[in-house]
Amino acid sequence: MRVVTRELSVTTHGRGYVEISDALNALVLDSDMRVGLCCLWIRHTSASLLVCENADSEVLRDLERFMARLVPDGDALFRHVDEGDDDMPAHVRAVLTHTDLNVPVRDGRLALGTWQGVFLWEHRRHGHQRRVEVTLLGE
Amino acid sequence: MRVVTRELSVTTHGRGYVEISDALNALVLDSDMRVGLCCLWIRHTSASLLVCENADSEVLRDLERFMARLVPDGDALFRHVDEGDDDMPAHVRAVLTHTDLNVPVRDGRLALGTWQGVFLWEHRRHGHQRRVEVTLLGE
Amino acid sequence: MRVVTRELSVTTHGRGYVEISDALNALVLDSDMRVGLCCLWIRHTSASLLVCENADSEVLRDLERFMARLVPDGDALFRHVDEGDDDMPAHVRAVLTHTDLNVPVRDGRLALGTWQGVFLWEHRRHGHQRRVEVTLLGE
Repeated sequence: MRVVTRELSVTTHGRGYVEISDALNALVLDSDMRVGLCCLWIRHTSASLLVCENADSEVLRDLERFMARLVPDGDALFRHVDEGDDDMPAHVRAVLTHTDLNVPVRDGRLALGTWQGVFLWEHRRHGHQRRVEVTLLGE
Repeated sequence: MRVVTRELSVTTHGRGYVEISDALNALVLDSDMRVGLCCLWIRHTSASLLVCENADSEVLRDLERFMARLVPDGDALFRHVDEGDDDMPAHVRAVLTHTDLNVPVRDGRLALGTWQGVFLWEHRRHGHQRRVEVTLLGE
Repeated sequence: MRVVTRELSVTTHGRGYVEISDALNALVLDSDMRVGLCCLWIRHTSASLLVCENADSEVLRDLERFMARLVPDGDALFRHVDEGDDDMPAHVRAVLTHTDLNVPVRDGRLALGTWQGVFLWEHRRHGHQRRVEVTLLGE
């Protein structure tokens, strides 16, 4: 067994999803890892990782509608508002989803289900450069 | 160190929980892994993985009541309704819980706390055959 | 590659956060692991693991306010009340956050982002002794 480390840099353009499944598969291919685990860690607290259906894009839009209702920007509950009224909601959205994600690798690829995609979810209204640490464990 | 892969197939009978702790312990035993990590990945986006108290079954029923109130079937917010009014709520429930789960292995067993059980949570109203990829890393 | 196991014991003083980033870095240093993964598992279902901004403490207070509104103590929805009116809310809070957390290790330290801290979140109103299993995988 061996460990291989990579870093993925993802440009976001404001609140929304960036699918990273293909970029991750390219990293796995490049590492020559055939079987094991592809471990992701996003180094931010106002963006997160997500697994969701990637067939009907309405699913992701509905998910955004749900989150916007559950954790609305400008909620009077929040006192941490110095960085904008979308900052604290972004932290809460990140807490309710995932900072890490550990995807099985089989036959040199992510063993995703037929309808599964891996996404980076930007929760701030402005775009950012986001960094994901990738740790491949296997052989 | 070595990597061992298994697949767990779980039959669900509509919305509800299936405890998989014993099935996982059987896989670990069969693999001869003594110490390391048992990494789970459910290959679906309308069912998920869950750790919860398994002593009082009222806990799981209360959890279902909470989710049914937070993400109600037939919510007018959702536009992705072609596959039924429980489909989009199932995706949201999966996002709010877990696609992966990484359980420590000690002495050839899952190192669960006294009251912890590992469950597969079916979020659709109809039953399905669900697949979980299992990656054991350790020695 | 090798696997190293440790256990972290954390004393809580009622509902609230205990940052464990430094304690984890001390374990990693002691293990001589330079690169890999630091895998955490909390052996309880009424406390959980969390990654959040650790710069402005108002962020954590806002997060507590959000959770207290989303999952209020004494909610009439809940029937599992024998262990107190904060017990079932504690289970729900744990389900909505994390039992496991898998942090990359680089150069002998957790590869956290600039503003990220790792926290144990006690969800019961009384303090407890909480146990976290730590599995280090790497070299």
